[in-house]
Amino acid sequence: MTETESIAYDVVVLGAGPVGENIADRTRAAGLTTAIVENELVGGECSYWACMPSKALLRPVIAQADARRLPGLSQSVQGPLDTPAVLARRDTYTSHWQDDGQVAWLNGITADLYRGHGRLAGPRTVTVTAPDGTVTTLTARHAVAVSTGTRAQLPDLPGLSGVKPWTSREATSAKAAPGRLIVVGGGVVATEMATAWQALGSRVTLLVRGKGLLNRMEPFAGELIAEALAQAGVDIRTGTSVDSVSRENGTVVAVTGTGDRVEADEILFATGRVPHTDDIGLDTVGLEPGSWLETDDTLRVTGTDWLYAVGDVNHRALLTHQGKYQARIAGAAIAARAAGDPLLDEPWGAHVATADHDAVPQVVFTDPEAAAVGLSLAEAEQAGHRVRAVDVAFSTVAGAGLYGDGYTGRARMVVDLEEEILRGATFVGPGVGELVHSATVAITGRVPVDRLWHAVPSYPTLSEVWLRLLEAYRDN
Amino acid sequence: MTETESIAYDVVVLGAGPVGENIADRTRAAGLTTAIVENELVGGECSYWACMPSKALLRPVIAQADARRLPGLSQSVQGPLDTPAVLARRDTYTSHWQDDGQVAWLNGITADLYRGHGRLAGPRTVTVTAPDGTVTTLTARHAVAVSTGTRAQLPDLPGLSGVKPWTSREATSAKAAPGRLIVVGGGVVATEMATAWQALGSRVTLLVRGKGLLNRMEPFAGELIAEALAQAGVDIRTGTSVDSVSRENGTVVAVTGTGDRVEADEILFATGRVPHTDDIGLDTVGLEPGSWLETDDTLRVTGTDWLYAVGDVNHRALLTHQGKYQARIAGAAIAARAAGDPLLDEPWGAHVATADHDAVPQVVFTDPEAAAVGLSLAEAEQAGHRVRAVDVAFSTVAGAGLYGDGYTGRARMVVDLEEEILRGATFVGPGVGELVHSATVAITGRVPVDRLWHAVPSYPTLSEVWLRLLEAYRDN
Repeated sequence: MTETESIAYDVVVLGAGPVGENIADRTRAAGLTTAIVENELVGGECSYWACMPSKALLRPVIAQADARRLPGLSQSVQGPLDTPAVLARRDTYTSHWQDDGQVAWLNGITADLYRGHGRLAGPRTVTVTAPDGTVTTLTARHAVAVSTGTRAQLPDLPGLSGVKPWTSREATSAKAAPGRLIVVGGGVVATEMATAWQALGSRVTLLVRGKGLLNRMEPFAGELIAEALAQAGVDIRTGTSVDSVSRENGTVVAVTGTGDRVEADEILFATGRVPHTDDIGLDTVGLEPGSWLETDDTLRVTGTDWLYAVGDVNHRALLTHQGKYQARIAGAAIAARAAGDPLLDEPWGAHVATADHDAVPQVVFTDPEAAAVGLSLAEAEQAGHRVRAVDVAFSTVAGAGLYGDGYTGRARMVVDLEEEILRGATFVGPGVGELVHSATVAITGRVPVDRLWHAVPSYPTLSEVWLRLLEAYRDN
Repeated sequence: MTETESIAYDVVVLGAGPVGENIADRTRAAGLTTAIVENELVGGECSYWACMPSKALLRPVIAQADARRLPGLSQSVQGPLDTPAVLARRDTYTSHWQDDGQVAWLNGITADLYRGHGRLAGPRTVTVTAPDGTVTTLTARHAVAVSTGTRAQLPDLPGLSGVKPWTSREATSAKAAPGRLIVVGGGVVATEMATAWQALGSRVTLLVRGKGLLNRMEPFAGELIAEALAQAGVDIRTGTSVDSVSRENGTVVAVTGTGDRVEADEILFATGRVPHTDDIGLDTVGLEPGSWLETDDTLRVTGTDWLYAVGDVNHRALLTHQGKYQARIAGAAIAARAAGDPLLDEPWGAHVATADHDAVPQVVFTDPEAAAVGLSLAEAEQAGHRVRAVDVAFSTVAGAGLYGDGYTGRARMVVDLEEEILRGATFVGPGVGELVHSATVAITGRVPVDRLWHAVPSYPTLSEVWLRLLEAYRDN
């Protein structure tokens, strides 16, 4: 290890995933010199082992399910998907795990890319250890932004290392469908990957420790998706913990808390995420290695005036789009502070990530889809808002039946009774993924319920569920 | 014809389509006795010969097109749709042209249905001539609402009656696909029916008098749909008028303005609508039979204090959903006036149809779909707003490619530069139909552009086009 040089920048960004890229985009746009450090592929988890490949795997599954609900078209799509073709398409959307395009984009915005392992080395200082061992020291006049994201959390289980378990990375990049797949978990990754691989040819067993799926959403989301997964052939076992795993003659054996043995060819642990902060030199600035980094709404780490934590690492909302949002905000806040401009930090100002508290959207790309934004009823009540939940079934919406025979879905809006605005909305059903943004605009814009009556949904779309929700609120 | 009785109601509604039904729903909810008169099927044009059957015909076409863009699924859907199965499904969604369900609904809200031809017979008076010739006179203490809708407008062409042309009614209710179909027109009905019947087995020739399709939308909508229709095999001839038609040995022959002969098995005229007001007794109250009825924003006819015109007949917006919106407003306004309650008639108040001016949404169910709300750039400029149009291609949105390979689409938002709010938005591309409601909420809620930055679209959905639009507005 040789120290070769030390270079000064205005801003140093640790991690070149979508979040880091967006910070750099904003700081460069403000004329701040910017270095960005990446140890793996530029583009990050999302581009290669998360959003992109998972959605590429899921989209044909969803389109096939849609087609199967339409007499006149359904007959032709009864057979299985062509799995190699789906996987080949997935490979295209991950750019075959090559980051040339993203590097070119960084070059385009004239951010300097440093490949290697970045670590803080005291305030405003980052060292980069390149693959060849060369160490470069970068100093940041204005800010260091940590956007190193998360990795899968594996449980501390007897036998785990011997089974070579899948995480989200292997589940999204696998080259073939395992004959049998155990999925451990009940969250978004677990339900999406169970959906994908069951449709792509695996027999999936879903082992869920809790009572149901997607327990951060309204309860009916997990219920409807569990019903659909079971109908698709997934063996769902709720209230089931995994006590040990082993691989016997190539076969994975998971022993459950009740002593059942479940066999499979692969096992995916979708059991949460840990921050990529254990080896980035946090100790050199008085922070705890491996911890989530707490920030204020400008995304600046508590107790510092130069360190930002943006995206998953701050644990505000572990979602690519929300991290990108934070990146735009943080980049603008860094630029404003660097220029000595006034900080726009009143709620919904340009330099605070207010939406992180009030309006985080999420779409689960299963069949049916689940899409939610803002607070669930339970969350709103816990936050002390006086609210009422209004529920409707999509069977009352003409556009739902037209979308597909036997359409099953539900929607809920959570209305704040003091302010007569929306606190949250949840939609579950085929094709609802694009519907949630209307609720995001309503919540973000604090559009009163009275005004929402004038927002006419087109007939006959799924969006007419809005009318049913407003009617239910008015009449009950 | 014998006069049998005269019955007094609070409200009499002429026409039991979706608009009339919604007026009655609101006046009954306010406790006003309500009669509703219908000469054909309760449920109206939309339920039997417009929205419902057209969307039932189009949905499998769109789902097939979606599937064809997805390797792994596309191979199975190369063949034609099973047209009889599609038509049978359409028949289900029109309830086989029986209105029992809708009559039961009217009974449920305890509105009194009078079957027969309703005509005004002086102020606050309506006569109903039943099929058996019985005449009933209804009087309205508070209001008569005309919601008789429109019918297809046929041009005054030599030979027309001899060819038994299709209108939207025959096009949506046909029992089989004609081998060859001429569609005359370039609006929504023309493009939707060309899309449907071309996919269901007809060879379609589209004769468009003007330069392009959908000329009430942003120009790129018609352009993209014309490209797609041509690719689907439709023979589009723009700048082409029809000078005469005839049927020779069963074959329809249309002679164009340039003397070309176009042959087909059927010809559809989708050349506009005229109001159903020619034989409803308008002359008895000093109005012009056959005219569109001008109203104020409470939907009350100019110069009267008792007559309302709601839905297509007032020519404010010829769309089912907008008519239903007007019906809710008119019903509430009638109820408020009847009760002597204050009228909430400031803009966006509960008794004025403000959205008719600012935020009328429309979805064209073609492939690609076209969806727009508010003002186009041309309309906004004509209205004297200082605006800027911001355009982006969907190719810049990750969710678009994932939705389907080769995804082609565009979006535009029209920003009011004085108020920094949206005046209009247009989305063209597969699957955008549910996207437009987010723009409807933004326009209706007058959500400032600064705030829209906090409305985060989920990655990777089509809704992320919002982010691209905001970036384009910021950077250009």
